[in-house]
Amino acid sequence: MKLIRSAIEKMEAYVPGFQPKEGEKFIKLNTNENPYPPSPRVLEAIRRGIGASLRLYPNPLADSLRDKIASLFKVPREWVIAGNGADEILNMAVRVTVGKNDKMLVTDPTYILYEVLANFQEAKVIKCPLNQNFDLPNQFPVEGAKMILMTNPNSPTGCPFDKKKLEAICRKAKGMVLIDEAYADFADENCMDFVKKFKNVIITRTLSKSFSLCGLRIGFAISNPEIIEAMMKVKDSYNMNRLSQLAGVAALQDLDWMRQGVRRIKRDREFLTQKLIKLEFKVLPSQANFIFVRHSQISALEIYKCLYEKRILVRHFNRPRLREYLRISIGVHQEMVKLVKVLEGILKGRDEK
Amino acid sequence: MKLIRSAIEKMEAYVPGFQPKEGEKFIKLNTNENPYPPSPRVLEAIRRGIGASLRLYPNPLADSLRDKIASLFKVPREWVIAGNGADEILNMAVRVTVGKNDKMLVTDPTYILYEVLANFQEAKVIKCPLNQNFDLPNQFPVEGAKMILMTNPNSPTGCPFDKKKLEAICRKAKGMVLIDEAYADFADENCMDFVKKFKNVIITRTLSKSFSLCGLRIGFAISNPEIIEAMMKVKDSYNMNRLSQLAGVAALQDLDWMRQGVRRIKRDREFLTQKLIKLEFKVLPSQANFIFVRHSQISALEIYKCLYEKRILVRHFNRPRLREYLRISIGVHQEMVKLVKVLEGILKGRDEK
Repeated sequence: MKLIRSAIEKMEAYVPGFQPKEGEKFIKLNTNENPYPPSPRVLEAIRRGIGASLRLYPNPLADSLRDKIASLFKVPREWVIAGNGADEILNMAVRVTVGKNDKMLVTDPTYILYEVLANFQEAKVIKCPLNQNFDLPNQFPVEGAKMILMTNPNSPTGCPFDKKKLEAICRKAKGMVLIDEAYADFADENCMDFVKKFKNVIITRTLSKSFSLCGLRIGFAISNPEIIEAMMKVKDSYNMNRLSQLAGVAALQDLDWMRQGVRRIKRDREFLTQKLIKLEFKVLPSQANFIFVRHSQISALEIYKCLYEKRILVRHFNRPRLREYLRISIGVHQEMVKLVKVLEGILKGRDEK
Repeated sequence: MKLIRSAIEKMEAYVPGFQPKEGEKFIKLNTNENPYPPSPRVLEAIRRGIGASLRLYPNPLADSLRDKIASLFKVPREWVIAGNGADEILNMAVRVTVGKNDKMLVTDPTYILYEVLANFQEAKVIKCPLNQNFDLPNQFPVEGAKMILMTNPNSPTGCPFDKKKLEAICRKAKGMVLIDEAYADFADENCMDFVKKFKNVIITRTLSKSFSLCGLRIGFAISNPEIIEAMMKVKDSYNMNRLSQLAGVAALQDLDWMRQGVRRIKRDREFLTQKLIKLEFKVLPSQANFIFVRHSQISALEIYKCLYEKRILVRHFNRPRLREYLRISIGVHQEMVKLVKVLEGILKGRDEK
C-alpha cells in the first residue's frame, strides 16, 4: 500500500517567489509586495491585541472582520468569508467545487496556483490561451466547465480583462466562476458588482498587496450565501488568528492610508513604464502593482541575471510565452530610479561590447 | 450543473466549542484553553515583529520555527512541517493520504474533525469502538486502512492509550498512522520516538494548549522526510504569518514557562478529580488538561445547564456514549474551587427538592 496518494506524489510543489533571508540587502521587486509600510493603525491594533488573551481561541468565523468587509461592500455578513491569505480562500473555493475529473477552466497565462489546487482534487485543467494582447479571446469555452478561475487584473501580465467579456462569461457559465481580484485596488475598475448579478460568482480579495499586509495573511471572498456556507464547511475551525483579525479590521478602517500608497504606486508604475519604453522595452499596460516587460534585443533571463548581480530582484517565469518577459513589482520612487539607472548601465555595457 | 460538490453539500459543518463574545463574563472551561497567559518572551517577540516588515511575505516554510522544533526533538529540519494550527496539519495529512473510497480508521470516540476531513476526501470512515475503559481494544482492525488517526491522550476522554498497543498498531499497519499529540505535554509519556521507528507514522503537536497560544494558531508535525515533503506540496505557500512564526520560536525557547503552567494544571486536575469523586462523580483518569466526568444520579445535560446559568461553561457532546459525560477544562485554582462550590450547590439544591 502506498502511503501517499498518487495524485500528490506525482505533483510538483508550487514554488513561491524567492524570499531573501532577513538582512540580505536586495531591492526586492519579485513578489508584488507593497513598498510602503502598513497603516500605523494596524500596527497599533496588533499591539493592543498582545496579551493574555492570546491563550484563547480566536473568533472562528472572524465576525468583526467579516462585518467590516460586509459594510464596505454593502452586502450582508453571510456573503463574506475571511481566510488565512487569499490562497486559503482559493483553496477552499476549489475544494468545494471540483472533484475528480471535473473540468476546471483557466486562462493561459494565469496564477500558477490554480493548476496546483486542481491537481489536489484530480480535476482536469483546461488552459485557454489569452489573445495577443493578453486579453480574453472572443470565444471562451465555458461549456462543461465546473469551475472557471481568473485573475483580474491578470498576473503575471498586469493586464485587465475586458469587463464586458468577463460579464458574458459569467452569464454563460453553468459552473462556478471565481475572479481573483488580488490587484483590483490598483485598477480602474473591478467586478465586485457581479456577485449580486450572478449566483455563480466568487470574488476574492487580499489585504497583502494594497494594504501592505503580506506578512499577516488576510484574504476574503464575497459571494452568495450558499457558496459561502459551503466554503465555511471546509474551512479550518480557527483559520484566522487573533492578531490577523484585529489587523484586518484596522486596515479596512484606514482606507486613506491604503489609497495614498496606491496613488504613489500608480504614479511610479507610470514613471517606470515611460522610462522603460525609452530604453526600448515593450511594457504591457498594467493595472496592477507590477509591470510585465520585455526588451527588444536582450533576453529576459540575461537581464534578470544582471539585475540579480546588482542586488535587484525581479521575477522571471521559465514558461512558454512568459520566458521572454520579466515581472517587476513597483517599489518606492528611489528604487525605480535606481532600477532604471542599473538597466541603463546594463544596456550601455552591452552596446560597448 | 451543481455549483457545490455533493460530498460537501451533504456534509454538516464541524461546530467548534462555543466561544463567548469578548466581555461576556464566563468561567470558560469548554475548549481546553490554557488558563495561564503565554510566556512574556512570546509577547515580546511579537512586539518586536510589529513594523514595516509586515508588508513582506513570511518565510514560506517557517524555517526558523522548524529549526527550533527539529533541535528540540533531535531530528533534521526535513522531518518537520509547521502549520496554521494543528488543524491545518491534520487537514494536510489527510489530504495527501486518502482519496475517494479509501478506508480511514478512527477510534470511537475521537476528535470529531477527523471524520469531517475524511468526508472532504470522500473517504470511508471506519469507527473502532474503544473498550470499556476508553482504551484501545485488543483487536484493532488495521487491515486495509489507508490511514489511521488517533488522539493520544484521547479527546474528549483525556485517557491515554496503552503505548504497547499503539506500537503494535503502527507495526502492523500498512497505511499511514497519525497520532495527534495535542495534549502530550500534560501526559506522562508520548509516542514521539515512533517517528524514528516507523516510516508510516506522523506525530502532530500544537502550541495551543500547553504553550497557551490557541489565539495564534501554531501546530506542527514530525514524520519522515518523504511524508513531510508530500505535505509541503499541499500546504498554502505562506501558511504561517510572520508573527506566529516569531511567537512559535519564542515559545519553544521558554520551555520552563510552559512546564510551570503544566505543573499547575496537573495539580489542579488532581484537585478537581478528588473533589468530584467526593461529589459522586465518575472521573476518567486524565492525562490531558481536562477531565471527562459523569455523575451517578444527575444527567450531564442537566448539570451543563445549571453550570451555564451560573456562568460556567463546560463541554457537552450530544452523541452516543458521550452524552452522559461532561468535559471540563482545567482552569486556574480559584476557578476549580468555584466550580466545586457551584456543583455542591447544584447537588444540594436537588437533594432538597
